[in-house]
Amino acid sequence: MTRFILCAGSTRTAAIDGISAAGAETDVMAHTPSADAEILAYGHPVRAPVVPVSPTGCPTPAVITRAIRERLGFEYTVVDAGLEEQTGAPTVTVGARAGDDIRERDPVPSAPGAFAAARQFGRRLPDDEVFLAETIPGGTTTALGVLTALGEGDALGDRTVSSSLPENPLALKQEVVAEALEASSLKPGDATDEPLVALRRAGDPVLAVVAGIAAGALETDTAVTLAGGTQLVAAAACLRHGGYDGTLDLATTSFIDADPTVDLAAAAEALDLSVTVSDPEFTDDHPAMGAYLAGEAKEGVGMGGALALAERAKLPKAEIHDGIRDVYGRLLAESDKEVPQP
Amino acid sequence: MTRFILCAGSTRTAAIDGISAAGAETDVMAHTPSADAEILAYGHPVRAPVVPVSPTGCPTPAVITRAIRERLGFEYTVVDAGLEEQTGAPTVTVGARAGDDIRERDPVPSAPGAFAAARQFGRRLPDDEVFLAETIPGGTTTALGVLTALGEGDALGDRTVSSSLPENPLALKQEVVAEALEASSLKPGDATDEPLVALRRAGDPVLAVVAGIAAGALETDTAVTLAGGTQLVAAAACLRHGGYDGTLDLATTSFIDADPTVDLAAAAEALDLSVTVSDPEFTDDHPAMGAYLAGEAKEGVGMGGALALAERAKLPKAEIHDGIRDVYGRLLAESDKEVPQP
Repeated sequence: MTRFILCAGSTRTAAIDGISAAGAETDVMAHTPSADAEILAYGHPVRAPVVPVSPTGCPTPAVITRAIRERLGFEYTVVDAGLEEQTGAPTVTVGARAGDDIRERDPVPSAPGAFAAARQFGRRLPDDEVFLAETIPGGTTTALGVLTALGEGDALGDRTVSSSLPENPLALKQEVVAEALEASSLKPGDATDEPLVALRRAGDPVLAVVAGIAAGALETDTAVTLAGGTQLVAAAACLRHGGYDGTLDLATTSFIDADPTVDLAAAAEALDLSVTVSDPEFTDDHPAMGAYLAGEAKEGVGMGGALALAERAKLPKAEIHDGIRDVYGRLLAESDKEVPQP
Repeated sequence: MTRFILCAGSTRTAAIDGISAAGAETDVMAHTPSADAEILAYGHPVRAPVVPVSPTGCPTPAVITRAIRERLGFEYTVVDAGLEEQTGAPTVTVGARAGDDIRERDPVPSAPGAFAAARQFGRRLPDDEVFLAETIPGGTTTALGVLTALGEGDALGDRTVSSSLPENPLALKQEVVAEALEASSLKPGDATDEPLVALRRAGDPVLAVVAGIAAGALETDTAVTLAGGTQLVAAAACLRHGGYDGTLDLATTSFIDADPTVDLAAAAEALDLSVTVSDPEFTDDHPAMGAYLAGEAKEGVGMGGALALAERAKLPKAEIHDGIRDVYGRLLAESDKEVPQP
């Protein structure tokens, strides 16, 4: 059996002006991963006071993942990988706490403990394979921090991490990462073979939890698919630097593959990843799909992995599109509903 | 769509000698609801350090519910309804805390808040129908406490609550409940139409959460099936005394129906319940099934509801039996496995 595991968490790095598109404003963004988990579980937010749709109408990739789950009914589990705001989704606890801005000296002190608990959890899963997904605004910046601390920046050059914005603010991310390493007295590559140092000093709790579950799964012969874009590449780097040399698949979207700031082939080569790229064949006759074609969002909440599961099940693209229209419509309708206080 | 919701929690009432069979010893029993939630989610405990199987080999009813879920794949959600020990199952939080021994003055101070949060959660669920289930050792004693405080004891006479033991220690339960009411300066019936008083002073957090979710579901036209035995009858009583007069189904097992200390027909009449009784047609050629035939366990973890879903899906009884053998076998095999420390 396949289990889709969403690791949902937060980093204050997301609050840096210009870093993330995941929720238009900072106070909304703090609720985005909680809302994403609820959309995966229920189809719409049940407790998070936000609907993660950008000003242009681009919905969170949770909508795509949910649309596919409604059709395939795959097993899912949400892990609280350091949520800043509460969620109404059922979550597994592994002791992760929301990460601080990586420009602070010790932004993710919970990383080693969360990795260890996540690893034990991964060891005990009964599944044949797991798909590991993330939702964390600001996550590509912390991914860049981890890749740089591990010394993987050179192999990837300037094509390291993607962005949920059409224009990747890569110079800003590099500046933030440089400050992050300096705050921890690290130079690029100083955390080679020490993924827990990279995660704690320049990363985020979601990457620690993804890497931990994957580590435990690999130790117990559970197949691991990293479902996502460059954040999952950073998780793969943590595993390789931690001595895990088992098979790692990466399932992502054609939007990541088409991103000129990403070099998937180089990442696959450097980290020995088997990469699956899925094209959802969106058309621009619907705002949810048109926004992705215009370069927004691109990936997240395991969208690429969900698309890969849909392809495996031979679910027609037209059904995925119908499902997205359906979930999106309900999401906007729900956002107008008032919940009375008791 | 149907969602199966397991409300898992604890009451220190279970520690009273002779009250419960859910876990042979008191320190094991504290982990039973956490383990039950994990068995529902993963098929075996992943974090709880116990395997809830009685000395005679009778497994927790979670085994039956899990076996049916493995075949039907129904959607499930676990709500932390006051767990004393942590669980590795994904849980929704509603602010419930483990209940104290009901002989204390204020054993469940979290009941009103948990009811309110559970009600809001129930209002926001997207489902056509919900099945509400429980796991809480000692729960039939607190159920008797609630029924007595609400004044429903008279209608049911001495046939009020069941037991997970072959011999129901009803006199002991009645004595505990009498002490509980006295500690809160209540007489039987003093909490009529005040379910939150009954739950807080003589009940447990699981009943508060079940009643809360059911209340929210009924308010938003989601069909409610109470999946369980006499504890769910107590939840129904809370709803009726709270002014909820919508349709309530109760789905339970033939073992509850056959229990001479239970009068399902009287409960159905008194509380306007539509009762479905499912007979799993167990045979005594397997310890898991033989123990149920001998009067152990009887119900719990929504076993009766899962059986009703199986009947609706026309799942043959033989497949359920095979599934039980399968889950039980894996459970015992897993219990011998060591998990190394990181």
